Amino acid sequence: MEVPSVLHMNSGVGDMSYAENSTIQQKMIANFAKTARQEAVIEAFRAVICPTKMTIADLGCSVGLNALLMASEIIDAIARASHQLNRRPPEIQVFLNDLPGNDFNTLFSLFPEFHKLRERKLQESEQEQVHCFISGVPGSFYGRLFVSKSLHFAYSSSSLHWLSQVHTIIPCASNATTRWKRSPLNNKGKIYISSSSPPSVFEAHKKQFKRDFSLFLKCRGEEVVEGGHMVLTFVARRSSDPSTPPLGCYLWELLAKALMDMASLGLIEEEKVDSFNLPWYEPSMEEVKDEITIQLRSPRNDHNDNPGAKSAQTMAKAVRAALESMLKSHFGEAIIEKLFERYCLLLEEYYSKNKAEVTNILIVLERK
Amino acid sequence: MEVPSVLHMNSGVGDMSYAENSTIQQKMIANFAKTARQEAVIEAFRAVICPTKMTIADLGCSVGLNALLMASEIIDAIARASHQLNRRPPEIQVFLNDLPGNDFNTLFSLFPEFHKLRERKLQESEQEQVHCFISGVPGSFYGRLFVSKSLHFAYSSSSLHWLSQVHTIIPCASNATTRWKRSPLNNKGKIYISSSSPPSVFEAHKKQFKRDFSLFLKCRGEEVVEGGHMVLTFVARRSSDPSTPPLGCYLWELLAKALMDMASLGLIEEEKVDSFNLPWYEPSMEEVKDEITIQLRSPRNDHNDNPGAKSAQTMAKAVRAALESMLKSHFGEAIIEKLFERYCLLLEEYYSKNKAEVTNILIVLERK
Repeated sequence: MEVPSVLHMNSGVGDMSYAENSTIQQKMIANFAKTARQEAVIEAFRAVICPTKMTIADLGCSVGLNALLMASEIIDAIARASHQLNRRPPEIQVFLNDLPGNDFNTLFSLFPEFHKLRERKLQESEQEQVHCFISGVPGSFYGRLFVSKSLHFAYSSSSLHWLSQVHTIIPCASNATTRWKRSPLNNKGKIYISSSSPPSVFEAHKKQFKRDFSLFLKCRGEEVVEGGHMVLTFVARRSSDPSTPPLGCYLWELLAKALMDMASLGLIEEEKVDSFNLPWYEPSMEEVKDEITIQLRSPRNDHNDNPGAKSAQTMAKAVRAALESMLKSHFGEAIIEKLFERYCLLLEEYYSKNKAEVTNILIVLERK
Repeated sequence: MEVPSVLHMNSGVGDMSYAENSTIQQKMIANFAKTARQEAVIEAFRAVICPTKMTIADLGCSVGLNALLMASEIIDAIARASHQLNRRPPEIQVFLNDLPGNDFNTLFSLFPEFHKLRERKLQESEQEQVHCFISGVPGSFYGRLFVSKSLHFAYSSSSLHWLSQVHTIIPCASNATTRWKRSPLNNKGKIYISSSSPPSVFEAHKKQFKRDFSLFLKCRGEEVVEGGHMVLTFVARRSSDPSTPPLGCYLWELLAKALMDMASLGLIEEEKVDSFNLPWYEPSMEEVKDEITIQLRSPRNDHNDNPGAKSAQTMAKAVRAALESMLKSHFGEAIIEKLFERYCLLLEEYYSKNKAEVTNILIVLERK
C-alpha cells in the first residue's frame, strides 16, 4: 500500500465526509492544545526581530473548518500580542499542508466564509486588522515542504500518529549475497499491534515511527527560523512498557474484529485482513523524547475523556471519514457500509463497559 | 453573475476538461512569451542581493500541465543563470494562483509527476539541483494575494482579459436624492462588444478593465520586491480606435450567434441571451499603457497565427472548457451539448473564409 497516495480524509461536505465528522478532533483542538499554541506563537512573535511578516504552517490540516479555526485562533493571538506590545501586527502567511489526495478544493471553498468571519470579528474588537494570506501545500510532511528558515510557527494536530508506510524487512537470498525486501507484516486477523501480534509487528511500527518522526523533525529543523516554535499533538500510549495493557488501540482492535466477522461470513477474504496493516503508531512519551534533537520546551502528556453521548456512532463515522480511502483501496468499495454498521455495534458494546479514553501527547518545541 | 464564484476552467482531466483542451494556450505560452519570461526572471535573480531564496507566482494558473511547464521553464532559467554566474541556485517558492473554484485537486495531483520529470532532467544536465516548493493560492488577483514585498517574479498568461464583473451603472431615483444601481448591459442578441452594441456596452467593458487592471497593478506593486519583475500576456485588440473592424471578437460573435440560433428554435429564452455579458475585454496597447504606473520595460505586441488543422473543433472545445461553468450557471446545463455542436459548425464556416488570428499583448515590468 502506497500510503501517501491512498491515505486521505473523506472529501467534500456530505454525511460521511471528514469535514462533517471531525467534531472529536475539533473538541481535542479546542480543549487540549489551544493555550499551548497561543502561548507558543506569541513567543515566536516576540522572537522575530522585525515582525512585519510571519509565516505559520498547519501540517496535516485535512479538510473542513478545523484548519481555518486553528489558523484564526493563532492570528488572534498575534493580534492581541501586537496590541499589548503597541506594535503594528505583522502580515501573516498561512500554509495549510496535507497529502496531495486531500480535498483542497473543499478546503479552499471555505476561504471566503473564513475571511467574512474575520472581518465581522474585527468590527467587534478594537484590534487592528491583521492581513493574512492563505495557501495550500500538497505533500508529505515526512519530507521538505517549505523554503529553508522560512517558518516562524508550525503546528500539527492529530496527524503524526500516521506513518508513511508500514511493513517488515525480510531476507531474500539471491545467489551468493543476501538481499532484503519489504514484506507485509505477519499479523493474523489484526490490523494494528494487538496482544496476539508477534513482536515483529510492534518492532516494525516502532521503527517506522522512529524513522518518520526523526525525518519530520529534521525537515522542520531546516525550515523553522531561529526562535521559531512548533506545537505538536498526536495520539500516544500512556505506558512506556509496550506489554502493559491496554495493548494496541481499542478502535483498531474492534475494526479488526468487524473485518474478521465479515471474513467469517465469506464477505471478504481472511488473507486480505491479515495483509492489511494500519500505518499508525501510538508512541510513548519516552520514544518521542528519544527522537527530539532540538530543544524541548514544555513536554507534557494528557488524555481526553469520553467524547459523550452517541459516541459509538460519532466515533464510527469519524473513523470511517479517516480510513475509508485506505479500506476501499485494499478491500474494495462494496464492503464499506456493512463493515461500519458492524463496527458501530461493536463500539456501542465496548462503550457500554469502557470509557472512550484517548491519550494525546502535546509537545512545544523552540528552534535554537 | 458573481464572476469569481462562477468563472473557472472545466475541472478534472476528462475529454471536456481544461487540462485536456488548453493546447492553444500551451502553443501561445511556448511560442510567444517564453523568452521574455526567462529573460525577466534572470534579471530579477540578478537584482536579488542575497539570492538564497526566490519567490515566483503564476497569476491565473488554471488547471493542467501548462502551469507546471511554465514553472519548470522558469526554474531552469534560474538554474542556468546560477551556473553561469557560479552562484549556488536559490531555493524557489512557487505560488500557483487562481480563483477558489479552480480545480486545485487535479493540479496538485500532477505534482509528483512534475517532481519526477525535474529529477530526470537533472540527471541529464550538469546543473545543480534547484529545490522548489509549490503551493496553491486560491483568490482573485484583483485583490491582495501575497505578503508585502515578497515576490521576486510574477507572471500571468492568458488571464487578464477576464474581468472581475461586467455591468452598467444606472440612476435610480429615491426620494430627494439620486442613487445609482448596477444593471445588466443592454446588448441585444450579443454577449460581448459587437458592431450592433450601443456605446454603453463598450464603455462598461473598457471602464471595468481600467478598474480591474489598475487594481491588479496596485496589488502587485505592494507585493513585488524592488528589482522584481512581472511578465504579463493577454488577449488584446490591434487597433487603438475601438470602431476599427474587426470590432469585438469573432469567438464571442459566433457564440452569440449559436445562442440566438437556439433561442430562435425555442430552446432558450432570447432575454437570457440579452442579459448574458461575457466578463471579457480586449484592450488596446494604449489603454494598457495608460494604466501602467510602475516602469514599463519592453512593451511589444504580437499576434498568433491560425492554430492549424482541426482548429474549429479544437477551438470549440477550448472555449467550452473555459466558459462552460458560466454558461451553465446562466442558461442551465441542458443546452451545453447542442450549443457547442452549433458553435463548432459556425467556427468551421468562419475558418473556411478567415484566419484564426488572436492578438496578444506582452508586457515586461520591473518594480522600481
